[in-house]
Amino acid sequence: MKSIIEQMNIFFEPRSVAIVGASRKTMKAGHVIFKNFADSKRRGIFRGELYPVNPNEEQILGFRCYPSIREIPREVDLVVVVVPAKIVPKIMRDATVRGVKAAVIISGGFSEVGNHELEEQVTAPAKEAGIRILGPNCLGVYDSETGVDMLFLPETKVLTTGDEVVATPRPMSGPISIVTQSGAFGVSALDYLAGKQLGVSKFVSFGNKSDVDEPEMLQYLLHDERTRVILLYVESIDAGREFMKVTKEVTKQKPVVALKLGKTKAGARAALSHTGAIAGSDRIYSAAFKQSGVIRARDMEEFFDVGKALAFQPPAAGSNIAVITDAGGPGIMAVDECQSRGVTVERFSDETILKFEALKKKRKIPTFATNLNPLDLTGSVTSEMFETGTEILLDDPQIYGIIVLGLHHVPALQEDFVDLIAGVSKGHTKPIVACAIGETEMALYIRTRFDKLGIPAYFSPEDAARSMAALVEYGKYLKKRDCFEQYVERFQKSAQGS
Amino acid sequence: MKSIIEQMNIFFEPRSVAIVGASRKTMKAGHVIFKNFADSKRRGIFRGELYPVNPNEEQILGFRCYPSIREIPREVDLVVVVVPAKIVPKIMRDATVRGVKAAVIISGGFSEVGNHELEEQVTAPAKEAGIRILGPNCLGVYDSETGVDMLFLPETKVLTTGDEVVATPRPMSGPISIVTQSGAFGVSALDYLAGKQLGVSKFVSFGNKSDVDEPEMLQYLLHDERTRVILLYVESIDAGREFMKVTKEVTKQKPVVALKLGKTKAGARAALSHTGAIAGSDRIYSAAFKQSGVIRARDMEEFFDVGKALAFQPPAAGSNIAVITDAGGPGIMAVDECQSRGVTVERFSDETILKFEALKKKRKIPTFATNLNPLDLTGSVTSEMFETGTEILLDDPQIYGIIVLGLHHVPALQEDFVDLIAGVSKGHTKPIVACAIGETEMALYIRTRFDKLGIPAYFSPEDAARSMAALVEYGKYLKKRDCFEQYVERFQKSAQGS
Repeated sequence: MKSIIEQMNIFFEPRSVAIVGASRKTMKAGHVIFKNFADSKRRGIFRGELYPVNPNEEQILGFRCYPSIREIPREVDLVVVVVPAKIVPKIMRDATVRGVKAAVIISGGFSEVGNHELEEQVTAPAKEAGIRILGPNCLGVYDSETGVDMLFLPETKVLTTGDEVVATPRPMSGPISIVTQSGAFGVSALDYLAGKQLGVSKFVSFGNKSDVDEPEMLQYLLHDERTRVILLYVESIDAGREFMKVTKEVTKQKPVVALKLGKTKAGARAALSHTGAIAGSDRIYSAAFKQSGVIRARDMEEFFDVGKALAFQPPAAGSNIAVITDAGGPGIMAVDECQSRGVTVERFSDETILKFEALKKKRKIPTFATNLNPLDLTGSVTSEMFETGTEILLDDPQIYGIIVLGLHHVPALQEDFVDLIAGVSKGHTKPIVACAIGETEMALYIRTRFDKLGIPAYFSPEDAARSMAALVEYGKYLKKRDCFEQYVERFQKSAQGS
Repeated sequence: MKSIIEQMNIFFEPRSVAIVGASRKTMKAGHVIFKNFADSKRRGIFRGELYPVNPNEEQILGFRCYPSIREIPREVDLVVVVVPAKIVPKIMRDATVRGVKAAVIISGGFSEVGNHELEEQVTAPAKEAGIRILGPNCLGVYDSETGVDMLFLPETKVLTTGDEVVATPRPMSGPISIVTQSGAFGVSALDYLAGKQLGVSKFVSFGNKSDVDEPEMLQYLLHDERTRVILLYVESIDAGREFMKVTKEVTKQKPVVALKLGKTKAGARAALSHTGAIAGSDRIYSAAFKQSGVIRARDMEEFFDVGKALAFQPPAAGSNIAVITDAGGPGIMAVDECQSRGVTVERFSDETILKFEALKKKRKIPTFATNLNPLDLTGSVTSEMFETGTEILLDDPQIYGIIVLGLHHVPALQEDFVDLIAGVSKGHTKPIVACAIGETEMALYIRTRFDKLGIPAYFSPEDAARSMAALVEYGKYLKKRDCFEQYVERFQKSAQGS
């Protein structure tokens, strides 16, 4: 009996894959999935064997096609099933005979539409034979490094005008992994992350969760070196105890951010008609997440924002932070949001205030700058002032994190303040997050540049504050679990390597 | 004595303007402001007379320069003051002698840095002479139609690489007006709105509010035909009673969305050191806003999102709405957010459900679609199904608004569903808002297309739900004030004309 890790690994790094339902017809899901693998294989990214299975074809995209899994002359690790629901039981019987180790059933038409019996027919014999199943009714797996890509939604679409546009992009490789019950949400997440140039390690969509579910996948991702943060989308969790046991282990080493739906009565009713699962009391979920160190995002945007913060910055060792800005108003917005999330923005220590006063005397910062926290360098700010200010705040032992609100519109501020701030923060383990408001060239450049230098940047002060709040929350949890230092040490190594 | 409207109008449509402190030196604020006007005048946008004032120059950008306002041979409606604080009293004395009607004092160095006496010296004689003052320490006015542009922040910046990029864009003409205490936030807002291709009518930044303040400006904007919604950023309001009296009048005819800072204790402390104003209890503000029909945004993003919704859609006549989608999960997110904002997403009426069942029988929508509210058309959706579904929902008298969550990733959905939905919604007065998740080409195209057709589109289901909640809240308020029908009628006319 293989370990959970080895079992799950087959979904992401199979030595051989059979695509059952592979097709030459471009509109078919079986075509898109097979082509994904074939393309990866040609480019040398997917290194396993690849077998299209379809009784009506001789070959597909240059690969010899087999009438059934049984006819494949060599061992098959994984089958991806993309055929109508009623044929799936036969396919799974073949898989059992063939000694397949794992199956991803993309096909829908099972318990999600009330066909519980058919789902049972498919899964029961397979489970008995030790075949692990993902799905049915799922999007399967996307792995940015191994070339495994079961998304049947093509990367581009052709508009009615004839123009081809990017529609379902695959993000580049990176530290975020996504575990999602909803396929629709999953592809939306990929679209979002790709557009924001955030890298993804692994993506897995469960669908009906007839076999493999969250706890096993979380265990696997805990041991995946490329994953630094796990984004978990759930409508309902069945094995509550097991989920808590596993997440408690995972969150000691890796942050898990959850987006849990069905928070309200109306939402729970909608969830019930969506997946047939009873969502259960939302308070119970909140308590369970809290107890097991899972950070719960309040909405979709926070889900991504917090994931980005945890992927690129260490957690905070305390709950008091500093705000450095050149814009009074947005500074207050950040302070308001911090306080309402339990993060304090206390008056700076006398020592730190004196440092700023000394800078004023030397005309290194504006004499009319306010320096109580926020440090407001005003519209007369220069890049060097942001650098000096950040350096002083990094040295203050009562400050555990910094929010940089750099509004670029003021006359003397150049875009190099981003690089200067990233420069002084090197070697420190205090988290920094940034905000640059605006949607035209300069603002987009500054956010992108911050992101590239590992300082997560947001478009609103409140988004930045909420992300900082998550870094504070996770730090507090790690301290309680007595593993803050180990986490930060590991994080630094991993972040440097990436 | 001129009416408030006439007095305020001088700031936006002066027949003649003197720029005191106009300069040839590109780095000076007086250069940027003068150039803004000069450019507008050359293009025939600014139609008033333009006089640079600077004792050290003969001419600037081809315009004859005057040593002081007194020397200008013709009447001067408005002066824009961009000289060091200590010279401002003299300038204002000249303005008094010259019979100037209004002044915008861009210069800082007054009460915001503790120089209350100097501010008094500047404003007291002017007030006595009936000169209306905006500022000091403000960004002044931007009007997208008259060419008045006092923003001293140049539209583009040159990066350290030598590349020129858009930095402080001026948005195109449109139905949103912005009234802001903070200049920094003001330019950020312009940057945001320009980047999102949202049009602005008028922008006014108050700074120290030594004379003109919110109530007068709101009265003016109430009568401005080009303004459909007013975005109001405030840190503190001094004349509370007057503010409430005026806003009660304004909100009967135009929505006012407020972003009020200093919500928390720490935020109020930060606001105090920012402007010196005591923010006052946040609860009092909330109560005052509610009573006078001002919609309070919870954060910056909601401020813009709600503004966009109210600018392009009529308010809802009731609090029950429908969600139509092709993605179960995101549908639930919208429902959750609706309910937590007091918007209901009740089970459809039997009549409406029967209509959907009939469509299933005719195979016009998928047989496995769920149709209780949300209407989930599933991954098999086509553009026509979105059209038919929306049409049925528009006809249901128990539904007062529709959230369309169109995830474009599914195979058979083409981008023309946007046009089809906009088509069937014509002639109806039920508000529709849309969501398309994703940040690559197709998602951006769909959001932009929705926006262009007057259906505000958002990147997250919760943002869409929050915007719908504002349409419900405003509708409820208008009904209470007994002016819902008049508002909708006027709105329809105005929206059609734009």
